[in-house]
This record gives sequence, C-alpha cells and structure tokens, in this order.
Amino acid sequence: MEIIKGGVTAAKGFEAAGVEAQIKYTDRVDMALVYSTAPCKVAGTFTTNVVKAGPVIWDRDIVQKSPYAQAVVVNTGIANACTGQQGLDYCRQEAQTAAALLNIPENAVLVGSTGVIGKQLPIDRIKTGIEKLVKAKSDTTEAGSMAAKGIMTTDTVSKEIAVSFEINGKKVTLGGMSKGSGMIHPNMCTMLAYITTDAAISKELLQEALSASVTDTYNMISVDGDTSTNDTCLILANALAGNDEITQKGEAYDKFCEALNYVNTFLAKKMAGDGEGATALFATKVYNAPTKQDAKTLAKSVIGSNLTKAAIYGHDANWGRILCALGYSGVQFAPEKVDVFVESKAGKIQLCQNGLEADYSEEQATKILSEPEVTVLVDMKNGTSEATAWGCDLTYDYVKINADYRS
Amino acid sequence: MEIIKGGVTAAKGFEAAGVEAQIKYTDRVDMALVYSTAPCKVAGTFTTNVVKAGPVIWDRDIVQKSPYAQAVVVNTGIANACTGQQGLDYCRQEAQTAAALLNIPENAVLVGSTGVIGKQLPIDRIKTGIEKLVKAKSDTTEAGSMAAKGIMTTDTVSKEIAVSFEINGKKVTLGGMSKGSGMIHPNMCTMLAYITTDAAISKELLQEALSASVTDTYNMISVDGDTSTNDTCLILANALAGNDEITQKGEAYDKFCEALNYVNTFLAKKMAGDGEGATALFATKVYNAPTKQDAKTLAKSVIGSNLTKAAIYGHDANWGRILCALGYSGVQFAPEKVDVFVESKAGKIQLCQNGLEADYSEEQATKILSEPEVTVLVDMKNGTSEATAWGCDLTYDYVKINADYRS
Repeated sequence: MEIIKGGVTAAKGFEAAGVEAQIKYTDRVDMALVYSTAPCKVAGTFTTNVVKAGPVIWDRDIVQKSPYAQAVVVNTGIANACTGQQGLDYCRQEAQTAAALLNIPENAVLVGSTGVIGKQLPIDRIKTGIEKLVKAKSDTTEAGSMAAKGIMTTDTVSKEIAVSFEINGKKVTLGGMSKGSGMIHPNMCTMLAYITTDAAISKELLQEALSASVTDTYNMISVDGDTSTNDTCLILANALAGNDEITQKGEAYDKFCEALNYVNTFLAKKMAGDGEGATALFATKVYNAPTKQDAKTLAKSVIGSNLTKAAIYGHDANWGRILCALGYSGVQFAPEKVDVFVESKAGKIQLCQNGLEADYSEEQATKILSEPEVTVLVDMKNGTSEATAWGCDLTYDYVKINADYRS
Repeated sequence: MEIIKGGVTAAKGFEAAGVEAQIKYTDRVDMALVYSTAPCKVAGTFTTNVVKAGPVIWDRDIVQKSPYAQAVVVNTGIANACTGQQGLDYCRQEAQTAAALLNIPENAVLVGSTGVIGKQLPIDRIKTGIEKLVKAKSDTTEAGSMAAKGIMTTDTVSKEIAVSFEINGKKVTLGGMSKGSGMIHPNMCTMLAYITTDAAISKELLQEALSASVTDTYNMISVDGDTSTNDTCLILANALAGNDEITQKGEAYDKFCEALNYVNTFLAKKMAGDGEGATALFATKVYNAPTKQDAKTLAKSVIGSNLTKAAIYGHDANWGRILCALGYSGVQFAPEKVDVFVESKAGKIQLCQNGLEADYSEEQATKILSEPEVTVLVDMKNGTSEATAWGCDLTYDYVKINADYRS
C-alpha cells in the first residue's frame, strides 16, 4: 500500500469541486460536490442519534434502495437538522437540481449538510451553488482539495488522504475527505466523511468493510461527547480500476479493508486533533485487557474525560484523573494492577505502577505532555486485547467557539 | 417543615469544627469534624467508580459492620485515592487518633478526603489537625459553618442547610453540609455530603431513605461528567429528638423523607450551581415522558452536554443542541413531538415547537439566559413522568481551574 497525493479525486473516474455559495458564511468555500463518471456501489453508516437530520434520512434511503449512486452534494453553515418535512423536501430539491445538471437519476444523488441545527436551508442559494459546482467540477487534485474545504465548519484544516494498492495486478486507489471539529462523538459514524474508490467490490462487502472499519476508527474518537444529528460516512466504489470484482472474503478483500482502515484512521485522527479549540491530539491506547470491547470502553472513557482533557491542555501529568476515568467507564478491573505511561516525540515515562504513583520527574512529564501529539498508554495486565481512542485537549477556545457559535 | 439556620450542628447533640491543618493549602480551613454526643445510626452511599478511595472503603465497612458511629473526620487537599494499602492504613490511623481523643471506639469514626488523587496524606499534619478539631468542636451554628468550609476544594461557597419538622409532637431537626465543584457526576452519591439528624429511626429505614433520596438529588447533578473516586454521602441519626423510633413506613417516615429530600436537593443544586468555573445553575426539567427513568436519562443528557453548557455560558438560545442531546441520550422518542422552553427570573419563552424552531425573539431569549439560574423545560408529550437534573455552564474558568489543578 502506498500513500499518494490527493483525496476524493485520486481514484479513477472521480471528479470534485468546492465553491462559494454564501449559505451562512461569506468569502469562503461552503459547498462541495463529489461526482463519479461511472455508477458507484455505495455503502454508508449514519448517526445513532434519535434526532436525525434530513440528509441522513435521504442518504440512508439511497444506500438501502438505489441500484447505484453517482454524486454527493454537501453544504456547510446549516445542518438541515430539526427542519421537518420542509428539510426533507429540500434534500429532494438538491438531488433533483444536481441530477438534472449531471444527467443522472435523482436517486443517484446523495446530499450532506453540517452547521447550525434548526434553520432551513436557503434553497435558492443552494441551487445556485449546485450549478456552480457542476460547472467547476474536475478530476484534479486541486478540485478534491477544494471539495474538502467546502465541507469544513469550525475545522482549522481540511482533511483528505489517498492510498493505492494492487489487487491481482490491478492498481486500485482509495481516497477520502472528512470534516469534524465540534459535536464529535460518533456512534456508528462520524460527522461527515466521504470515501471514493475505483475498486470493484460487491455492495454487501463494501458495506461490511465500511461498518467494520468505522467501529475501529471514527467511532473511537471524541471531541466533546456530543453525538451529532448529522453523522454520515459514505463510500462510493465505481469499479473503474478493472480488478475482478471482490465478491467474497479473502486476500483481495483484506487488502481493500487494510487500505480503507488506513484512510479512515488517518481522517479520524485528523478530526480528533483538529477538535474545536484543540492544541493537541490526545490518544489513549489500552492494552492487555480481557476483551477488545473492554479495551475500547476504557480508552474512550479516558479521552472523553473533561478533567483529563483539561489536564492535557495544562501539560499536567495528572494520572489520577486517568485512573478515575478508567474506573467509571463501566468496565470492572483491578486498579492495583494498572500501569500508566505517557508518550510523545519528547519521550516516554511511567506515571503509575500497580495503581500507585510511580517515581517520575514532573519536569520530564511536562516536557512529554507539551508536544502536539500525546499518547496515554494503559497496561491493564489482565489479558491480551487492545484498542486505541483519539481525542483532544479541552481549552479556552473550545468554550469560546461554542459559547456563541450561532452568531 | 421549616427551614432554620445552621447546618450539621442544627440537630440536637451534634458538634462540629473546622481548622487549618496545612494539608495542601496554607491559610485556609482544610479539616473538619462532625461529632455526636450520643451514638448514631449511620447510613451511606458511595461512588460506583471501580477505583475507590481509601476513605470510601473504610466508611463502607463502618456503615455495614459497626453497631454505631459517632464522628466524621474530613480533610481537603489530598483525596487519599490511588494510595493502596498505605492509604487505607492512614484511614485507620485517623480513626484511631480521633477515637482516643473523643473516647469512642475506633470503628465509630468515619473519615473522608477530597483533593488530588495519587498522593499520600501527610499523616502527622492530619493527626495534629485532629487534635485541633477535637479541642475546637462546639455545637454552635458557627462551628457547623467552619466544618462546611473545612471540606471545600475549588468550591467558591460553602454549602449547608438545616430544617426542622414535627413527628408525633416531637421537634426533629435535620442538617447537612456538602462540597463539590469538579469531578462531579455522581453515580450512587456525590462528592462529599454529610447529613446529621436527631431523629430516632431504624438503621434499615435510614439507609432506605438515604438511597432513595440520593437517586433523585445528588445523582441528578453533573458538573463535568467525571464520576469521582471519593463520592460519599453519610447520614448520622442520634435519636436525641426523642420521637418514637421510626421502624416502619408511614406518616412519620414520609415526613422524614420529605425533609431529607429537601436538604439533599438544596445541597445538590448548590453543588451544581457552584460547579468549577460556573457562572450559572443550569437545570433541565423533562416532563410528560413515558417513564421516570426516561425523563431522568433525557434530563441528565441535556445538562451533561458540553455544547449546551457552552451555549448557556454564551447566553445563546441554541435549542438545536438541546434536541441533539436528547437524541443521543439512548431514549427512543419522536422528535417531531418535542417542545422546548427556557425559563428564568427574567421570563419564559418557547424555543422549539413540535421539533421545529418556534417563533421567538432572540433578544428576549438572551435576556432570559443571562440570569444566574436558568431552566430548560422539555415537554415530551408522550406520558406523565417527569424528572429534573441540575448542572452548570462550561466556562473558560473551568478549563483554567483544571488545566493545572495540582500546582
């Protein structure tokens, strides 16, 4: 597997665009299009929130019922959530507009929205935006990057990646983009992530690969514990790589899954590290746990702890908060067995041994914790399972951003 | 029932003290004593965190096995959590020291600690503190207030209350004090709360009354979602009121429960409103829900949402975040039925009707949200059950306090 330049336009036959449509912001790219010249198999995972945004309902229908998909239209600024029948009608109008311009069926168009909840889309500006997107679309790397910009909200950097690998002598490419900065605590999926591939793969295996990968990647990140109404992860596969269609598990499927996992892990970590107001990516790896699920639950509890997140911001080796967060996770364990370490580019140090304070230098710990990527390592000494979760620190700026997000 | 002056010394036979012992801070009262001249029935509820502090293990044993209790010794500054066998030995040494000075059995002394996790108690200073406490103890209102000060950590105000009521012609008094500012997300009980009463009541009913009350009071507050290692709520009943001992449910028991509930609700709200860095008490009342448990889960999800808490801080009527938090609570419901209101001293306004934005004035909403006590009202229109949860806003100061709490 090779990491290559680009994002959603890296795979054969995919085009993209990002344009300014003045949905909520002025002077910034706020709409994106992903288009495939050939029909795509599509798989998706969506928010488990009872309150589901219009685009989630629309896309779930397409994934379940449409024979294929060929385009995704996304806007930022307004989430089209808590907007009722009107909001759902607007999804249809978006799809109709794009379908007419792209000469594809209405039910081949997926839609996505992110931003403020409870406001209706300015549907005229959306339609004008779609016209601009269709005119601007291209298969260049730059077009993919513009699309990645067009889905950002409070993100400070756009997030995209692409990889290529071989299946039976055919080069297959997989690329993706995502956004996510606040209201990030995915359950089933993350805010918005769009993956494109030219692999030929059956719809069933595409969905299975995506669902499995999401569990270990997007579902293992948290910025603020708030599971969004709009969480959507879609993958479009147009089969243009020319490989024999993957219709059963085996070497080819494994290669595909490995690449998909790499892309999703990259995007998930990018989202966590770019959490609203964050100054650091804060990972927690729990190992030697009795079960994979235990390890996951424990790791997520640590990266979700506000007190631990604030301590990371303060570069404070407050390992007691880590043990406390493990303790209220719901997993039963023996505290007197647990070892805790922190690690970053600046080194690695043990803070806690067998549940008690280890003999360590606060100065060295602070140095390690002052890096932009910090990992807490937790050895449960009670099994062989492991899991990693990713979050970020809790800062003044998180509060600032969210105290008056709507204005 | 009458609200009277005082706290833990309000009931007959109870004495208290608070002194400076230089446990971690200098120039502040940091140890407290509660003492009863007569042996007390004792009941308690403790943290559900797997990582339990030494004092939690010690007190649970006393509550379960001792025939009676007569004193509580508490320190702030160091939590005596994650301190292993040494920490537990120090609990015994505290109890022994107090027992010798008060001339009561060692197993009649409860202990409590709050503060930094992972550090051992400075046991010599603790012992000197206990000597000072025993010398200083008195039954005055002032002594009770000093004790309430002696258990504070980052609390900005001390928390105490007392009520009196009649049982079969006898005046019974119930008083309490608590502390709690960060690491507050009680599960079974809160940080530290100590209730005293001169009521005569059986140990079984005392425990039943406490457990039931804790569920609706301390367990319904959250400051930061972090369930502490030290959560402890104790009630001491010394029977000096002279009422016929309450040994079965009925009018007398109900009166006792009503008073206990009042005291616990008062202290719980005080703790939520004094959450670390908080500028507002942020309550959520969910009503017309299918079950009491649904109403509780929904209400707690709203007051626990970082995004909603930040919006409250910003006086921003961001009702979409409220609906989002209801949606990921785990309770199934029809979003299109939900109404949301906000209320404070400045008025009441509807933000959301049938899951959609209501027609309201942002200016008026901001005015209502600018008060120090704000309540979100959620009408589920699907049943008759209700519950209230209490939290606080999320502010810069929460981050500041917790970014470097240890130094």
